[in-house]
Amino acid sequence: MSAFREDGAAALDWLASYLEDVLERPVMARVEPGEIRAALPPSPPDAAEPFAAVLRDLDEVLMPGLTHWQSPRYFAYFPSTASDPGILAELLAAGLNQVGILWRASPALQELEEVTLDWLRQLVGLPEPLHGHIEDSASSGLITALSAARAAAPDRRVVVCSEHTHSSTRKAARLLELEVRETPVDDAYALRADDLDLADACAVVATVGTTSSTAFDPVAAVADRAGEAGTWLHVDAAYAGSAAVCPELRHHFVGWERADSVGINPHKWLCVPMDCSAFFTRRPDDLRRAFSLVPEYLRVSEEVVSLSEFSSPLGRRFRALKLWAVLRCHGREGLQAIIREHVRLAALFAQWVGDEPGWELSAPYPFSLVCFRLEGSDERNQELMERVNESGEIFLSHTRLGGRFVLRLAIGNARTSESDVAFAWDVLRREAATLD
Amino acid sequence: MSAFREDGAAALDWLASYLEDVLERPVMARVEPGEIRAALPPSPPDAAEPFAAVLRDLDEVLMPGLTHWQSPRYFAYFPSTASDPGILAELLAAGLNQVGILWRASPALQELEEVTLDWLRQLVGLPEPLHGHIEDSASSGLITALSAARAAAPDRRVVVCSEHTHSSTRKAARLLELEVRETPVDDAYALRADDLDLADACAVVATVGTTSSTAFDPVAAVADRAGEAGTWLHVDAAYAGSAAVCPELRHHFVGWERADSVGINPHKWLCVPMDCSAFFTRRPDDLRRAFSLVPEYLRVSEEVVSLSEFSSPLGRRFRALKLWAVLRCHGREGLQAIIREHVRLAALFAQWVGDEPGWELSAPYPFSLVCFRLEGSDERNQELMERVNESGEIFLSHTRLGGRFVLRLAIGNARTSESDVAFAWDVLRREAATLD
Repeated sequence: MSAFREDGAAALDWLASYLEDVLERPVMARVEPGEIRAALPPSPPDAAEPFAAVLRDLDEVLMPGLTHWQSPRYFAYFPSTASDPGILAELLAAGLNQVGILWRASPALQELEEVTLDWLRQLVGLPEPLHGHIEDSASSGLITALSAARAAAPDRRVVVCSEHTHSSTRKAARLLELEVRETPVDDAYALRADDLDLADACAVVATVGTTSSTAFDPVAAVADRAGEAGTWLHVDAAYAGSAAVCPELRHHFVGWERADSVGINPHKWLCVPMDCSAFFTRRPDDLRRAFSLVPEYLRVSEEVVSLSEFSSPLGRRFRALKLWAVLRCHGREGLQAIIREHVRLAALFAQWVGDEPGWELSAPYPFSLVCFRLEGSDERNQELMERVNESGEIFLSHTRLGGRFVLRLAIGNARTSESDVAFAWDVLRREAATLD
Repeated sequence: MSAFREDGAAALDWLASYLEDVLERPVMARVEPGEIRAALPPSPPDAAEPFAAVLRDLDEVLMPGLTHWQSPRYFAYFPSTASDPGILAELLAAGLNQVGILWRASPALQELEEVTLDWLRQLVGLPEPLHGHIEDSASSGLITALSAARAAAPDRRVVVCSEHTHSSTRKAARLLELEVRETPVDDAYALRADDLDLADACAVVATVGTTSSTAFDPVAAVADRAGEAGTWLHVDAAYAGSAAVCPELRHHFVGWERADSVGINPHKWLCVPMDCSAFFTRRPDDLRRAFSLVPEYLRVSEEVVSLSEFSSPLGRRFRALKLWAVLRCHGREGLQAIIREHVRLAALFAQWVGDEPGWELSAPYPFSLVCFRLEGSDERNQELMERVNESGEIFLSHTRLGGRFVLRLAIGNARTSESDVAFAWDVLRREAATLD
């Protein structure tokens, strides 16, 4: 047996065992800052080591420093799942090592990316024609969108959003030297369309499923205003966009079909391993205007527009392979079942919180995130979060809504079941009881 | 056996067989534009399909559209190798699915990235202290560098480079609305330091190993001038930087130890699968000034600066795992042996070309790329390239030097041996003989 087959079997066995037992591990890493660094050799080896040594140190050195995103009891930030077909497709992509710098460097990479993005477009109910490509992150997608918007209206230097718009919009605006103008939000933390001021705005960002509380901005009203003002509308649906595979949840998205660009992260709620952020636009020519630059050594005889002409990076990984594998091996129905179950579990958890004296819900829960808190001070809630996380039994995170420190229980790992959510509720109540 | 173990064994077997037989396949894909797209279903399936169907269609549908970057007879652009430990580490990274949005989300991801970048720093002989992190591509690294340079000198809006500087510098400058000023090159296609005009320049980009011809700019002289002018010096060593693991090749890099930032792509010539681009800087505070933005939901009790504060993306993949595996399983000596052999083979090929009547060398070959041409017209050389590539036996690319169409034979796949290079030379002469 060759070394690759032998080492590969060992790696696969290691990973299968990890995934089978991940529930047993403390969800949040328990190390102190610098602890992992100190456990690693300060210099690389001179001589080759066997791959078995890497696997050994993964267990002995790195494992305590891993936070287990694959655990069914991971409820922090937005959980994400690498499901089996996505994991194995990444193995294949690494082995094939396609580098998509232009079409002839990998026709299959480019065309599979175009096809799978069109599949995703159909799954979430967006209209055609729509250009689609994959970015590494929604942050990069924001840069792509705002850059195209700026190129389309170079005299306008303002980006409009709300205080609950993801920080990546502000980060992209800083990179592009655009001013950010914030629109107030309503009681549900959604942008108030009546207060939109689009003067000198090259772009407005509306969010469906904000990171803080999964609020959804009134996209249709924003689209009306953006249309009147000739302002580029980007819809950030990084987390919630995946929910649009369920027709009964699409009412939250009404109007996004009129957006100039839309971002959805299949690596968040659609079972695709990091990283896979989908970018759609009905104005691909504006993207090319902002990004296309073909040097001599990439000029060839076939007339195909390379995907690198639509955003910053020249080389692209074969990310489409994992999206393809996931969409096929789960199927539309499989993905719908996962999303529906998460939405059901969130509503169930919210009901438990709402019914429990001393606890309160802090925001609506249109998707699979519940924002809640113990009655009383911020310090009490912060202390509760740290205790719960340090227990290792579950992992959750926080935000600030209406000035108050609020806990976030985000359901989004495909392995999470009702018993895991019930367990989380038990842990929360148990730790809360020890607080005073 | 669980489905994951069973499907994983099938995927691993498929990949091992692919890598064992990759030499037998036509190197450049032979499909027409649109052919792969047309062979794929127009819509995603409703019901789940088995993973075996993905493997089957990888063979039956996608395979003709793959250009085989893993082939030892791939000599186009800059070849890159995914070596065994890198491939298997990607499997593990996908399965662990760490998402590095902040330290506590994966302490091991952040600290392993810091440690492996320091290992790489030591391997290529750069001085400490140096901040290092991983980007997806050198293009993104250019954005990071120029963005920090602009933040450090906001009144200067010029980036200086040469006509042979990679297109990613121009692309980044466009994104950042900086003007590009080109410095002339000498007969070896290196930037002429005497002609540098750094007035109003926030940044100057010097390249070690240009994409066209692997020319190396006089970095020490540029560093002198940049130091006097207070201009940020970025050294783009995306391809050639890996060669600095060999002390005898470091003379091409003299001066880069004074750069403000340096980019090296281990996914090019250091056996790491796409994507892994190393970014080093001695001015991390300027990067943070340009990029740091921590929203409430990411504020936590531990005082650790997250790697997301040094560049655009918020979420990061566990890319350090493959770099770690490669550096350990090849070791310093193993990596040196690969680079040395490639440099030796390039010199050997150049000697064959130089000794053959009717052929000419077109540029110096300090690393592992040889630029050459048939005497005569550009059309003849272009026709030669297309015939050779269409034969499927080898794959190479071209550039334009001094106005002439020039062939590029780039050696950089770890599987390439002297017999593959000799084979390439045979194919080139055979096809050239059929030209007139």
